[in-house]
Amino acid sequence: MKVFVIGAHGQIGKKIVSKLVAQGDQVFAGIRQPEQGEAFEDAGAQPVSFNLLEQPAALAVAFKGMDAVVFAAGSGGQTGYDMTLMIDLDGAVKSMQAAELANVKRYVIVSAEFTTDRAKWPNSLKPYYVAKYYADEWLKTRTQLDYTILQPGTLVNDAGTGKVTVNPGIGGEITRDDVATFAVKTLSTPKTIGKTIALINGETPIATAVEAEG
Amino acid sequence: MKVFVIGAHGQIGKKIVSKLVAQGDQVFAGIRQPEQGEAFEDAGAQPVSFNLLEQPAALAVAFKGMDAVVFAAGSGGQTGYDMTLMIDLDGAVKSMQAAELANVKRYVIVSAEFTTDRAKWPNSLKPYYVAKYYADEWLKTRTQLDYTILQPGTLVNDAGTGKVTVNPGIGGEITRDDVATFAVKTLSTPKTIGKTIALINGETPIATAVEAEG
Repeated sequence: MKVFVIGAHGQIGKKIVSKLVAQGDQVFAGIRQPEQGEAFEDAGAQPVSFNLLEQPAALAVAFKGMDAVVFAAGSGGQTGYDMTLMIDLDGAVKSMQAAELANVKRYVIVSAEFTTDRAKWPNSLKPYYVAKYYADEWLKTRTQLDYTILQPGTLVNDAGTGKVTVNPGIGGEITRDDVATFAVKTLSTPKTIGKTIALINGETPIATAVEAEG
Repeated sequence: MKVFVIGAHGQIGKKIVSKLVAQGDQVFAGIRQPEQGEAFEDAGAQPVSFNLLEQPAALAVAFKGMDAVVFAAGSGGQTGYDMTLMIDLDGAVKSMQAAELANVKRYVIVSAEFTTDRAKWPNSLKPYYVAKYYADEWLKTRTQLDYTILQPGTLVNDAGTGKVTVNPGIGGEITRDDVATFAVKTLSTPKTIGKTIALINGETPIATAVEAEG
């Protein structure tokens, strides 16, 4: 499977890339800075220059021939909310439009738990949730993509556990490694198409949880 | 006509309120701070405490019995892009949802010229345009409201000219006074429902321009 990973240099993105490579997929790693490329080449992925500030038609060039696009980008905590608007919202939507322009049907996005429910947005992160919410909504209602929306709980950097609870209804933590494993499994599980899936660490092996969710 | 003006204390909002009062409408001025109320009472409008950070159900209370809602709010240049996300995007959408909850069909929003066309967003204002774009799109595609979207060019504080050019296809300036006059005329012109109208100052009397656009 040819997979384009947007935000490949991010914490979850890197893990998605390496797990896809490990299972034999052909991985294209969208990077903003050329110097980020070498590490991906060494890891067996193909780095591709990619900037979410560009227009959809430009982004679509990078998606030609892909079987799937994974959006794991985020403006991150180091930039201002201007970048939240430009990357997490408009950048995400432009990548959806680009996928459609390039005839790539499969699109998986890493969102955040409770994004769908405005009343549950944590106070200090509300502006970020606004961006994620409108990106998710666009994907669901304004595209014809075969989407899956993953909404992990609070991200932590601990070692992966391999186990999750899906749609827990309560908040919780999940390791970035487990989110990446879940995303990779989602890509090869067509039953997850059209689903929005919340996930935190729990007791169900990830492969079982993805299959059950499908 | 009972009209609720969101952002009544803003530069365009104030003018919309006074023009509506002048033509005999019953005007409810949404304000965030109680001390803003007296000036509206003196001007013949009824101040109503209103905060776009609240949930749609709370906002809907203020809309009960209204014939129309006008969204003239903006986070303004003094606040950060966090408020652009919270007010210009999510606040606007929540007010749409509130209008529907309160069974107010008519909804007029003051947007900005070229909001619909991402390629024309001015560089320095792109994050702001992201917010306005997704608010406008929500109004058009996710509500059943009788909407009109006004997209004025660059706003200036000169005296009103009474004349505009509609959908000019090029950029240009328009006085806030003329935008307010146009918005007020739009409210009493049902033919404008479902329209997105760009406007800059020009040669056509506003009443004629609004009628022609309908």
